[in-house]
Amino acid sequence: MKIAANDPNRKSWLNGNTECDFPIQNIPFGVFITKDDIITIGTRIGEYAIDLGAFHQLGYFKDIALTDDIFMQDSLNDFIADGRKTWRLVRNRIAEVFDEKNSILRDNAEHRDVIIFDVNEVEMLLPIDVGDFTGFFSSKHHANNISNIFNFKNTEIESNWLHMPLAFNQRSSTVIVSGTNIKRPLGQTISDGKTTPIFGASKKIDLELETAFITTAANHFGEPIPVNEAEEYIFGMVLMNDWSARDFQKWETKPLSPAASKSFATTISPWIVTLDALEPYRCENPNHEIQNIQLLPYLKQTSDKNAFDIKLQTFIETENGDLNNLSESNFKDIYWSMSQQLAHLTINGCSVRAGDLMSSGTLSGPTKDSYGSLLEITKDGEEPITLKDGTKRSFVNDSDNVIIRGYCENEQGRIGFGKCTGKILPAIEF
Amino acid sequence: MKIAANDPNRKSWLNGNTECDFPIQNIPFGVFITKDDIITIGTRIGEYAIDLGAFHQLGYFKDIALTDDIFMQDSLNDFIADGRKTWRLVRNRIAEVFDEKNSILRDNAEHRDVIIFDVNEVEMLLPIDVGDFTGFFSSKHHANNISNIFNFKNTEIESNWLHMPLAFNQRSSTVIVSGTNIKRPLGQTISDGKTTPIFGASKKIDLELETAFITTAANHFGEPIPVNEAEEYIFGMVLMNDWSARDFQKWETKPLSPAASKSFATTISPWIVTLDALEPYRCENPNHEIQNIQLLPYLKQTSDKNAFDIKLQTFIETENGDLNNLSESNFKDIYWSMSQQLAHLTINGCSVRAGDLMSSGTLSGPTKDSYGSLLEITKDGEEPITLKDGTKRSFVNDSDNVIIRGYCENEQGRIGFGKCTGKILPAIEF
Repeated sequence: MKIAANDPNRKSWLNGNTECDFPIQNIPFGVFITKDDIITIGTRIGEYAIDLGAFHQLGYFKDIALTDDIFMQDSLNDFIADGRKTWRLVRNRIAEVFDEKNSILRDNAEHRDVIIFDVNEVEMLLPIDVGDFTGFFSSKHHANNISNIFNFKNTEIESNWLHMPLAFNQRSSTVIVSGTNIKRPLGQTISDGKTTPIFGASKKIDLELETAFITTAANHFGEPIPVNEAEEYIFGMVLMNDWSARDFQKWETKPLSPAASKSFATTISPWIVTLDALEPYRCENPNHEIQNIQLLPYLKQTSDKNAFDIKLQTFIETENGDLNNLSESNFKDIYWSMSQQLAHLTINGCSVRAGDLMSSGTLSGPTKDSYGSLLEITKDGEEPITLKDGTKRSFVNDSDNVIIRGYCENEQGRIGFGKCTGKILPAIEF
Repeated sequence: MKIAANDPNRKSWLNGNTECDFPIQNIPFGVFITKDDIITIGTRIGEYAIDLGAFHQLGYFKDIALTDDIFMQDSLNDFIADGRKTWRLVRNRIAEVFDEKNSILRDNAEHRDVIIFDVNEVEMLLPIDVGDFTGFFSSKHHANNISNIFNFKNTEIESNWLHMPLAFNQRSSTVIVSGTNIKRPLGQTISDGKTTPIFGASKKIDLELETAFITTAANHFGEPIPVNEAEEYIFGMVLMNDWSARDFQKWETKPLSPAASKSFATTISPWIVTLDALEPYRCENPNHEIQNIQLLPYLKQTSDKNAFDIKLQTFIETENGDLNNLSESNFKDIYWSMSQQLAHLTINGCSVRAGDLMSSGTLSGPTKDSYGSLLEITKDGEEPITLKDGTKRSFVNDSDNVIIRGYCENEQGRIGFGKCTGKILPAIEF
């Protein structure tokens, strides 16, 4: 289907810069607070943040059935619950009003003053009140790497991995927005050959390059979502850094799953890029054919274009401002599609709500320069990397700012996610 | 400290029956809907449900600082967020008004009509909007049994188990209130010796006898809760049946943790019994001494009375009405206290919010008649049990109603949790 807001030829009167992540074809959604302490839902075009609360109050959505306060909220949950039809109408209307040919807001200085802000003058907040946060484990390269490094006796991927998108649940209470600093966590570590743990700050703080999708209310208790309908319930995507303390993880993981090693923080990017905006970058799932050999029917998709071409990059920014590129990867290499993840999650009747967050798992490519974690890049510290300033890293140091970027680019143009950043601060005394 | 509402000598004009789970010394909190479709927070005395929204509106809490609509809510989260001091004042005031010596409400027929309902005439709803649901794994007997039955190559408890209260996170979207029917879930199962799974309804639906506690907002992001302060943040407890599909579990668990095998449903009892009400039943943690040998300081409690003497029972009620007692256990046998669980969960800075739910894990005792799951009682189906009607059970059949009961009883009297029930219905066609 054709989505009006995605028109690649549209230009906006607001910002002519088409090189950035937020041209008028993107129209993502986020929550911000202005200098005057107004919290609102907004969108972004170029270097401008648009207050959708004010935009709606001033009548610019007047033909769309929306409650009065739908954008005057501190989370997108209620808007997300309105469903895909509403999201489309809203994006299309925003595109129309900011189109260079449309003068209605462009020529109204009074309205512009209360609707449009310099993006550097607002503070981005967590865009959703996270319901459940379920973490998938869907990159085969990552699963292989982890099995080799971490799986103790077993160097092979578990046989169940190829038959279903394995997942575990994570704490939503510590999902934080990009830019929030993180104190190095305290916890238990086991030294090699020892059976008694020691207490202290983690010495192996790692990033995990991930994406995540956010759902609307998808199903009732007890009702599975068919795999070919699942995308209807996906609002959009964000970048995610699922911070991990690898030393804690090694000691705690068996017989359950990572818990304290991940629950100290998970960072997401502030602007949710809608699945609609990503439509021009839809591509084949490169695993479609191998999957089909063995898939149970509830995971079989009729289309083989179930992936999205999203280029991903990780960096460490050191205190001197150097930007050190760690790796480059792509979301399209994921083995299990988001639809398969959602179909599997709900096949047992598990309900999914507006504001639930589902992450991809670390998105590693086939080679070292495409690995999504330092655990993989440095082989658990055995092969440290050297940064521009000459210092070495096995894992993340205090004061390192970890940056994830993601964008889509093809002949239709470019849209992106902006940045997902987080800096590690020294541990507290306890 | 002495809690006025717990006075064992108090009698209520409302209900003289002291044999039931809800004497005036209990004063639990729940959410119900009346025949007139009014949703309210309430408490229970004997066979009566008390509408606390109406009670407050009519001025019976007039000396307590409460917002007007604090009880006119569909969840207890906001009241829980008010903190322990408020919970105590509210319980004390309810005890006072319903004391047999107090005529203020007793003699006001008009007020009684809008405040007091027959408990059978209201429908109990889920009492909280569950934030995160973290499942601990804190019964040593259960951990041992599971290792023997389930752990494939390894028949010993993992060495980390004795050093920290291991946990995994679970879906909060499918936490349901007692009395909600559950369709037998669909999913993947692996047959012995096979490497390719089959699809279908679970053949091994099991109960898990658990309790859970509910927290108030306890800490800020990055700040651990000291173990000796943790109880301040526990609002109360419920009974829980953490339903499990053992065939799904066996196939999916490695290398992560149970997910689809548990996320189809978790049932909790409707009345939250406050930690204050449980105070007279506080007792020694029987594991205190062995724990002390090896505990890291952040898990060491100054008191050794960190357990609560809560008697627990499980039953299968067959369609003919027979009540078959499966097992009897006690919460006090748990290895890790709730305070230790909360201290461990937050040591890495993980934040805890009002409405978060933390479960105990299956509460098995040392012998077969005290095991908290059919997996343990029947040794994964190898030793089926025979019910009163002569039928056998390895796991739960369709139409079986699984009932968990829990109560405290000593020289001070008895309080209880009522029932946590759920019936398994046939799987859907898919």
